[in-house]
Amino acid sequence: MSTIQDRLTALRSEMKRQNIDAWYISGTDPHSSEYLPARWQTRAFISGFTGSYGLVVVTNTDAALCTDSRYFIQAEQQVKGTGITMNKLRVHGSVSPESWLLEKLPAGSNVGIDADSVSVSVFENLQKKLAEKNINLVAAPDLLDIIWSDRPAQSPNKIFELELKFAGLSRKEKQEQVVAALNEMGADYHVVSMLDELAWLLNLRGSDIDYNPVFTGFGLIGKDENYLFTDSQKLPTGLVQKLQTEGVVVKPYSAFYSFLSEVKNKTFYFDKSTTNYSTYKALKSNNKILNGTSVIAKLKAIKNSVEIDGFRNAMVRDGVAMVELHAWLKENVSKNKISEFDVGQQLKSFRAEKAHFVGESFPPIVGYKEHGAIVHLSVGKDDALPIEPEGILLFDSGAQYFDGTTDITRTVALGKVTDLQKRDYTLVLKGMIALAKAKFPAGTKGCHIDILARKPLWEAGLNYGHGTGHGVGHFLNVHEGPMSIRQDYNETTIAPGMVTSNEPAFYREGEYGIRTENLMLCVELEESEFGKFLGFETLTLCPIDTTLIQLNLLDENEKEWLNSYHKKVSEKLMPLLPHKLHGFLAELTKEI
Amino acid sequence: MSTIQDRLTALRSEMKRQNIDAWYISGTDPHSSEYLPARWQTRAFISGFTGSYGLVVVTNTDAALCTDSRYFIQAEQQVKGTGITMNKLRVHGSVSPESWLLEKLPAGSNVGIDADSVSVSVFENLQKKLAEKNINLVAAPDLLDIIWSDRPAQSPNKIFELELKFAGLSRKEKQEQVVAALNEMGADYHVVSMLDELAWLLNLRGSDIDYNPVFTGFGLIGKDENYLFTDSQKLPTGLVQKLQTEGVVVKPYSAFYSFLSEVKNKTFYFDKSTTNYSTYKALKSNNKILNGTSVIAKLKAIKNSVEIDGFRNAMVRDGVAMVELHAWLKENVSKNKISEFDVGQQLKSFRAEKAHFVGESFPPIVGYKEHGAIVHLSVGKDDALPIEPEGILLFDSGAQYFDGTTDITRTVALGKVTDLQKRDYTLVLKGMIALAKAKFPAGTKGCHIDILARKPLWEAGLNYGHGTGHGVGHFLNVHEGPMSIRQDYNETTIAPGMVTSNEPAFYREGEYGIRTENLMLCVELEESEFGKFLGFETLTLCPIDTTLIQLNLLDENEKEWLNSYHKKVSEKLMPLLPHKLHGFLAELTKEI
Repeated sequence: MSTIQDRLTALRSEMKRQNIDAWYISGTDPHSSEYLPARWQTRAFISGFTGSYGLVVVTNTDAALCTDSRYFIQAEQQVKGTGITMNKLRVHGSVSPESWLLEKLPAGSNVGIDADSVSVSVFENLQKKLAEKNINLVAAPDLLDIIWSDRPAQSPNKIFELELKFAGLSRKEKQEQVVAALNEMGADYHVVSMLDELAWLLNLRGSDIDYNPVFTGFGLIGKDENYLFTDSQKLPTGLVQKLQTEGVVVKPYSAFYSFLSEVKNKTFYFDKSTTNYSTYKALKSNNKILNGTSVIAKLKAIKNSVEIDGFRNAMVRDGVAMVELHAWLKENVSKNKISEFDVGQQLKSFRAEKAHFVGESFPPIVGYKEHGAIVHLSVGKDDALPIEPEGILLFDSGAQYFDGTTDITRTVALGKVTDLQKRDYTLVLKGMIALAKAKFPAGTKGCHIDILARKPLWEAGLNYGHGTGHGVGHFLNVHEGPMSIRQDYNETTIAPGMVTSNEPAFYREGEYGIRTENLMLCVELEESEFGKFLGFETLTLCPIDTTLIQLNLLDENEKEWLNSYHKKVSEKLMPLLPHKLHGFLAELTKEI
Repeated sequence: MSTIQDRLTALRSEMKRQNIDAWYISGTDPHSSEYLPARWQTRAFISGFTGSYGLVVVTNTDAALCTDSRYFIQAEQQVKGTGITMNKLRVHGSVSPESWLLEKLPAGSNVGIDADSVSVSVFENLQKKLAEKNINLVAAPDLLDIIWSDRPAQSPNKIFELELKFAGLSRKEKQEQVVAALNEMGADYHVVSMLDELAWLLNLRGSDIDYNPVFTGFGLIGKDENYLFTDSQKLPTGLVQKLQTEGVVVKPYSAFYSFLSEVKNKTFYFDKSTTNYSTYKALKSNNKILNGTSVIAKLKAIKNSVEIDGFRNAMVRDGVAMVELHAWLKENVSKNKISEFDVGQQLKSFRAEKAHFVGESFPPIVGYKEHGAIVHLSVGKDDALPIEPEGILLFDSGAQYFDGTTDITRTVALGKVTDLQKRDYTLVLKGMIALAKAKFPAGTKGCHIDILARKPLWEAGLNYGHGTGHGVGHFLNVHEGPMSIRQDYNETTIAPGMVTSNEPAFYREGEYGIRTENLMLCVELEESEFGKFLGFETLTLCPIDTTLIQLNLLDENEKEWLNSYHKKVSEKLMPLLPHKLHGFLAELTKEI
């Protein structure tokens, strides 16, 4: 296997041959995916960094991996000794990759990029910034194709249908909603670029990406005709015909750009921030482009009643697995040698016994002691810390069920804990409760309510470096837009039917990490003469460790919320829980 | 005097002569002023609406006044019977003036606008939107100049210098700060378009606009040369020479655009959202334009230590006037006939006795009973309501002192009040206190903390339709940017040295209005390993009516804040207060 240095050397000599002075690896695939099919794990190939976010820029003499605070510690460790430097993004004084390139390159240089795997927005922004110093951005053929001899092919995995009893709406009904939006905007076609949007729209699922039940393809939804660009051998017998009957013509994945380049005088709607530059290039000369948030992303984010019921049901099974894990942990931590890795494995096996289980929704994050402070670390069997009956353990995990996707973090005491740990834990909990109890008018955005989760920490001079809430798909990606709950401005308002996480946290580097995460459904609470007021229903059903709470820091309303939550958890989980664990759950959910 | 209908008829026949199908009145002057010199009160001239925000669009058959929720009630009343319809902005489902025009006009129409009195951003946005229907935006000569026979001339009022003991920094020091920023950006000139920026930069003040101590002019700050474009007869003897010695060349106001049009191959920095389109037009062909928030606006917003001390001192005198007014009110409400108008007059006369008083900082808003719910109503002698010893009175007012600008709102009980009034008042107070006590990391924006002021209202299904905080100038405009505390996204972070208002409110239309407003200084509270944490020092010194509080709605921390605030108010005001009012102030500020 080649080393990172070998790969950088090969890339640089290819750059030289092609008269390119820097190569920009956007870190995504042609569909702006967060988790990547093997073929598109270009960031990991070139840098060795395995986190889920980051991009790499390589000049003839320098190379930088740019990522955000979730991965600072992990990235620092993984690029050590490769000659790649780490470039922190989204922090005060951070240097953008554009600025980094402007600093490193002389005027007149050429920066190369693979136009398939970069969004129009990133491409155009980069192009504009580089032009300030007369540096060209070149949409080049993918140099990694040349130097990556054993690059994986496109996945041949089979696509399958999601039954209507789980999806709630037929693909025809969903297409009609999209067409109604197209008509309103005066557009002819909606380009469907993101894989989770394509899967949702067509009630199809796949397994081309670990943890995300999606398949590789593009869609084109029009008033009179719909196309699915995917390799037909991925479709089970009869499905091509069935789709055709329902108005969806299947064409080869590789035919997408050439198909587009033959369309003329039409109006195409798509989101420049998620659609790749090659798509735009194929259309822009002969057609009108309307840029905006994907209509499908917006429709998909508002869960229908069948999806919502599915989430509620999946949460019961998922909560039972979590309680089983907790009991296993209590039982084994003193008498057996167990590691962080074992916790993830064990949790997966408890979940796998449950109805409708498909797989994990992301690699479990199990952080004991100082590992808990490495926000998104995924430990392997070999680098996992052994777990002892002391200190605190953070575990963040989730599952894909046919009826819903889960994502949950709990932080539990394994033995003696310090007063400071309890103080920190309680402040995080206060924030989580404040957001769960929030009441706000329709029209409120995530950036307006994010403070609720942070306020108790801020008052103590503490903070956490990531967002508070992300959208969650229905048996789809565990991270989905278009809404978010974080400080960054996001124009999408939080609306009834949306499912987001609520995950305030606190990390003491080198010591421990604390995070408590539930999923919440946005619901309407009240309509007054001052408008509609919204709030959240917490979907996740799992005890929150009360032994870590510093009780005098909670006010009566917070205690009441927690007691009422635990009452609901107990009522919902008890019927499905093995009888021998009833006492254990009763103990975990008893009133404080 | 011509009627509104006469004026619309005259405008329409002029439009016809010039082949213009609609006329757009942006509602501002060549300097994006909020309060306007008489010459530029075009919105009031054409519509009769006297509020401080709004724009007017007139077609051959229709006319619309567009304004925001502060003025809905007032505007509705003022345009009644004129044939002008009211178009609500910044509310759910509102129609933008662009959309209104697109709806009313056929493709191929011409929309005319005076390019001097519209910002580049508004012009370009309008142009782009109208182009969707092939409608042209024409930068025409100002049609109002033709139909407005007695249009006021430019003000001849004298400019005066603000002494260094009030300003804190010399004009030379301020210019050096601007030049440093220009150098960093690689720009040659900063266009100074807004009148308060020009006044602050040059330590000059004027009286061309009621309430705002500014003068009409443009500035151009360069590395080697600075220009002030204003009419030299406005400058007192010797000041032209003095400015010249200090590197500022004075040129006639009318020479500004022609001077610009002769500059070539330079880089100009200005804010497209506040600089007019004529300026841009004069520069764009031969020069490079950098668009960004005005450097001067940013420097001006961070008050220096002399300005901060000035604010603190002015607040003492202003607070004394407020207590005198309150005492006068208590004494007169039962035994004399007094009206809302008298309250404003009386308050002005108490303030006028104080050291360094220059004038009011805006027209006083005095709203008794249902008038309190008309957010920014300014009543005249004739339409003022008589004030009786019952119900609640809201008064919002402020003053210009050489050492600072004030802006304060108090809501007081004049006799019997209802439980609901007390509940509403207490919820508003809770929000005001929460924002005053806020602690947040450096980098926080106004939209992140706005919720603190609204949360108690939201929880009761209530809200208010305006922002929570605006910047306040130092002996300058009572509304200044670039920061704000409101739901709308504003990229400027709240930083130490900024002065903003804190004014949550609640209005029951047709019944009463409640608003409690203090000015606050942003200060650094703590630096931890998690960053710098900021908060506010409340500057305003004036009792908050405790008889309107429903005590069981305040928690211990809120009571403690209020008691400690009242203790400070009492300590600071007592020394300057007439002896006979000492007991009154002690009563108003006693512990709850």
